[in-house]
Amino acid sequence: MPKGLLIVYTGNGKGKTTAALGMAMRAAGHGLRVCFIQFIKGSWRYGELDAVKRFDGLIDLHVMGKGFTWKTDDREEDIRLAHEAWAFACTVIDSGAYHTVVLDEFTYLLHYKMVEIAPCLHVLTNRNPNQHVVITGRYAPQELIDAADLVTEMLAVKHPLKSGVKAQKGIEF
Amino acid sequence: MPKGLLIVYTGNGKGKTTAALGMAMRAAGHGLRVCFIQFIKGSWRYGELDAVKRFDGLIDLHVMGKGFTWKTDDREEDIRLAHEAWAFACTVIDSGAYHTVVLDEFTYLLHYKMVEIAPCLHVLTNRNPNQHVVITGRYAPQELIDAADLVTEMLAVKHPLKSGVKAQKGIEF
Repeated sequence: MPKGLLIVYTGNGKGKTTAALGMAMRAAGHGLRVCFIQFIKGSWRYGELDAVKRFDGLIDLHVMGKGFTWKTDDREEDIRLAHEAWAFACTVIDSGAYHTVVLDEFTYLLHYKMVEIAPCLHVLTNRNPNQHVVITGRYAPQELIDAADLVTEMLAVKHPLKSGVKAQKGIEF
Repeated sequence: MPKGLLIVYTGNGKGKTTAALGMAMRAAGHGLRVCFIQFIKGSWRYGELDAVKRFDGLIDLHVMGKGFTWKTDDREEDIRLAHEAWAFACTVIDSGAYHTVVLDEFTYLLHYKMVEIAPCLHVLTNRNPNQHVVITGRYAPQELIDAADLVTEMLAVKHPLKSGVKAQKGIEF
């Protein structure tokens, strides 16, 4: 009997969103529907967008908020937007319309206490038992790790931006 | 000035090949050509194969060897096949025809001493300086890590197969 997995890609290394993207395309390759929700505006660019378009509408992409860059001075407005974004994710999860739902960079909302972890875990653990959910981002809280089925920590052993190489098309974005 | 990166995804956690797949599709999304060489036969299935087909020939996929499962009794034959596979990868790298070359699960050939690391590093460090190479697999040797620009270690924090959940379509393959 299949079981929908709660998958977390966390850690400070590269490859978290990229692995979620790979999973989304693999599932879509099977003809399965995926909803990819981005919680940090602007982290995707044309490479991903064009790639996603090649899957004939099997991958729905949604960009949340007005830019959660975590540098704002208006914390109340941030919290309002974070709640709005999470509420949207809840309707997607509850719809049961997707084989896999990706909450890209969602951990930051938990880490920075923009949304409470307890109601999130309630939604995640009460979802359609066949639905997979993939959550990415640094600083995954321990409660999320405890609730997850599969957790990989991407550790930065070496990072090129530290050695002065600029972000490049087809690699970083 | 762009610089081709040598990227290594290693470690015992999930997401190494999946991240390489995500990178391949992101590059192809930009219209850039990718060659994805699989050194462990059978690790890819229909999800990936169908996904790759959606990129109009931008992603070339090659499966090497007759099944490097590392359980054979004929080490000499294994070494012969490993050399043959590596020689093919060299022609692909040297062709300069690709924006990105992925050597999926290649680290095992180095770890199990099927091919020597020194000539591999020679080919990798003397490649077209604009070409990106992505190498995945456990047990990346230190010399490879030293030569790489970007290294992420995927650490298994939790793995569902350990808790008795079977591999599933669209998730594991």
